[in-house]
Amino acid sequence: MSATQTNKIEIIKAATSKIKDVDFDNLHFGEVFTDHLFECDFTNGEWQKPVIKPYAPFLLDPSAKVFHYGQAIFEGMKAYKDDNDAIWLFRPDENYHRFNNSATRMAMPEVPEEIFMEGLKQLLQLDEAWIQKGKGNTMYIRPFMIATGTGVIANPSDDYKFMILLSPAKAYYSGEVKVLIAEHFSRAANGGIGAAKAAGNYAAQFYPTNLANKAGFQQVIWTDDATHTKLEEAGTMNVFFRINDTLYTAPTSERILDGVTRKSLIDLAKRENINVEVRPVLVSELVEGAKNGSLKEIFGAGTAAVVNPIIGFSYQDVYYELPKSESSIALELKDKLTNIQHKLAEDTFGWTVKV
Amino acid sequence: MSATQTNKIEIIKAATSKIKDVDFDNLHFGEVFTDHLFECDFTNGEWQKPVIKPYAPFLLDPSAKVFHYGQAIFEGMKAYKDDNDAIWLFRPDENYHRFNNSATRMAMPEVPEEIFMEGLKQLLQLDEAWIQKGKGNTMYIRPFMIATGTGVIANPSDDYKFMILLSPAKAYYSGEVKVLIAEHFSRAANGGIGAAKAAGNYAAQFYPTNLANKAGFQQVIWTDDATHTKLEEAGTMNVFFRINDTLYTAPTSERILDGVTRKSLIDLAKRENINVEVRPVLVSELVEGAKNGSLKEIFGAGTAAVVNPIIGFSYQDVYYELPKSESSIALELKDKLTNIQHKLAEDTFGWTVKV
Repeated sequence: MSATQTNKIEIIKAATSKIKDVDFDNLHFGEVFTDHLFECDFTNGEWQKPVIKPYAPFLLDPSAKVFHYGQAIFEGMKAYKDDNDAIWLFRPDENYHRFNNSATRMAMPEVPEEIFMEGLKQLLQLDEAWIQKGKGNTMYIRPFMIATGTGVIANPSDDYKFMILLSPAKAYYSGEVKVLIAEHFSRAANGGIGAAKAAGNYAAQFYPTNLANKAGFQQVIWTDDATHTKLEEAGTMNVFFRINDTLYTAPTSERILDGVTRKSLIDLAKRENINVEVRPVLVSELVEGAKNGSLKEIFGAGTAAVVNPIIGFSYQDVYYELPKSESSIALELKDKLTNIQHKLAEDTFGWTVKV
Repeated sequence: MSATQTNKIEIIKAATSKIKDVDFDNLHFGEVFTDHLFECDFTNGEWQKPVIKPYAPFLLDPSAKVFHYGQAIFEGMKAYKDDNDAIWLFRPDENYHRFNNSATRMAMPEVPEEIFMEGLKQLLQLDEAWIQKGKGNTMYIRPFMIATGTGVIANPSDDYKFMILLSPAKAYYSGEVKVLIAEHFSRAANGGIGAAKAAGNYAAQFYPTNLANKAGFQQVIWTDDATHTKLEEAGTMNVFFRINDTLYTAPTSERILDGVTRKSLIDLAKRENINVEVRPVLVSELVEGAKNGSLKEIFGAGTAAVVNPIIGFSYQDVYYELPKSESSIALELKDKLTNIQHKLAEDTFGWTVKV
């Protein structure tokens, strides 16, 4: 798609804005959407004319393949408004490339960079009044693609819809998080789709997570499905462990998502001269560290929460609570990262991109 | 739901029928749908009034959870019309119970039996003109449920839609099928959702299957993800192997779908005094059997194709072609099973249910 063509995103403006009905101080994550969305359809083997239009329900055939065979992928990103009303994205190229990696694994067409990036930028500009200033405020961005082709034979769709939604969000605080280490259930197979942000990966976690919730735990830390001895992800986030003064996190793989927050925290920790080791971490190390006091912190890392501290874990029916720490590397890194994202600290990495 | 309530399925008839446009002799599987569909919504914690209405696209919010988190399940069933114009189902209770097992695993509400069965029967009766007589003709039935609740936070939906579609089908013939034994990719994790008819399981197979197609193979035989030494399923079907005069198939598990055709073929084989062993089958046994000539047949088993003979397989870049057999247990069992389904042979098992 040439630059000339992308200038041609059709824009259909909403007659009225819903913004006056929004209580920005009391937003629940992911429930409120802005006035417009971006949409581009793939049909007859090519991407069609993109459009920005009022957020509204749309029609799908009951036999659409997304309903029957789960061809659906997404990304999670955020935009931020600085004190000068400039809008910033955080490493959008990472999300863009991961989106297309997910597309390939799910036998879906790649979205051209200009459609993805121009759609995103023009949508943010049109709905810029919805992006609130200040460190507690972000605009959560949800690019996604679904199979819209019809027919109940199990093969890849010919038709797809790519959309971007915007949802204003407050700083995400999930309260004190206790986790259950997975001993039976798992989120990804070797040779499966765990590294893709595929819709089906998420629904698969709901039942085991519900069971954990009923037992008093907010999340599950997933382990490798073959042996349940290696720690992989926490809920829908990557996971870090601090043993003494070193951070540990598993290497990414076909089972573990290549998280943008994860890799940013690793780089940030290195800059701050914090030891980081990327290697498989065993459940037994965690238990040992909890017993001898060397395990200081556990935290999830992801776009929505940025960093989600975990205060304790259960394994084989034994609950291990972490010591209350005077200093938290998790919160220190979170503060430094969100300062970069909100343009409150120098971006020595070149991660932030102006819209 | 009481019987009184199910009598209250609202029926909105289509103004005109599309049946006159259908070439029943040249149907492609899963592309043509009848005039009506059955629909029942789950909201406010309960199933709402069911309705049969004209087949048509419907509206969904862009943030519907089926698009983002893949909460979606389905079943595949068939109906048959006998020479006296009576309509028959084949073991519908099996599909009903499996549907609700899938629902539980995907954190979705169970569908009450009366909604599922009464909806199915009344829909078949209303569109009975679409069910063609004769052994080559069936009505493929697609019950499915999707998460319709809105919001891009990754948790189970509050709202769901259950639907049944009908698609007339000819006998399914897929030509000569050669398969690739999976050495890297896999379809299910231990502790995963492989036993559920969850939408996401199917899209996950498209990419590896496309790669196999490009290499000249029509399907993949999936192996266990941890070691790739055990044979699990063929494409979207269960799989049987005949070594000398014994049939082998893997036991069902949380990785392997409990197929209705699979279990019916096992019972039918036993009735016919054919040896059947249900136990893990190793890739090495298959290779050994191909080398020494004891491997006589491989076939997939599922609702759409009933039995799908496989003529050869590739493993570690070596292609093994099966001997052309004078007698095929696969085709013998298929014939006996379809005769029962079409009411052309006595149903000694009590599998067929009159609508």
